Amino acid sequence: MYDKSNVFFKILSKEIPCDTVYEDDVCLAFKDINPQSKIHVLIISKGLYTDFTDFASSASSEVVYHFFKAIPQIASLLGISETGYRIASNIGKDANQVVPHFHMHLLGGEKLRDL
Amino acid sequence: MYDKSNVFFKILSKEIPCDTVYEDDVCLAFKDINPQSKIHVLIISKGLYTDFTDFASSASSEVVYHFFKAIPQIASLLGISETGYRIASNIGKDANQVVPHFHMHLLGGEKLRDL
Repeated sequence: MYDKSNVFFKILSKEIPCDTVYEDDVCLAFKDINPQSKIHVLIISKGLYTDFTDFASSASSEVVYHFFKAIPQIASLLGISETGYRIASNIGKDANQVVPHFHMHLLGGEKLRDL
Repeated sequence: MYDKSNVFFKILSKEIPCDTVYEDDVCLAFKDINPQSKIHVLIISKGLYTDFTDFASSASSEVVYHFFKAIPQIASLLGISETGYRIASNIGKDANQVVPHFHMHLLGGEKLRDL
């Protein structure tokens, strides 16, 4: 059950501003306000999915493909294609998912600690 | 440039055994021999891609979609759909990518530390 009171819904509906890095019909990428590495961008789906499980199971093949294909393009825009980056998504309680709207973290810009 | 001397190529070609969790035409999932959490599974593409950038940019839409759609099914097989899990992929040097064959980490089975 998608809950529209979450902060990413408010960002998508422009109730709350964000520092946009990339945007298209399927996703919006913006800087994390509490970065865990030198570069820390969140990539969120424009469709209303609670988490990765929901997105990968319910979104159309075109949307899922487009979303993941956009990520290397965003890394390129950020200038970290060559140096490297990590993508990650937290699903549910054990992973400490904070916002119940599907998002991927993109981390880089410096040597990252191990997983 | 894909390098066939990597360990995941050897696992795919059955030169080296693995503890398989799930397999289909697009991906193979097996237990990480050096787990970073109670459950730590690696999901690798059957296609020969060096990393996530290569996979998302070069694989067909059907393959990319299928790969990501399989992940929640694998989480379900592992019994961690409800408790939660993290997916992550390391690309290149800054992220300490070890094996130059595209793979996603699936972590769970216990409360994970923050990203």
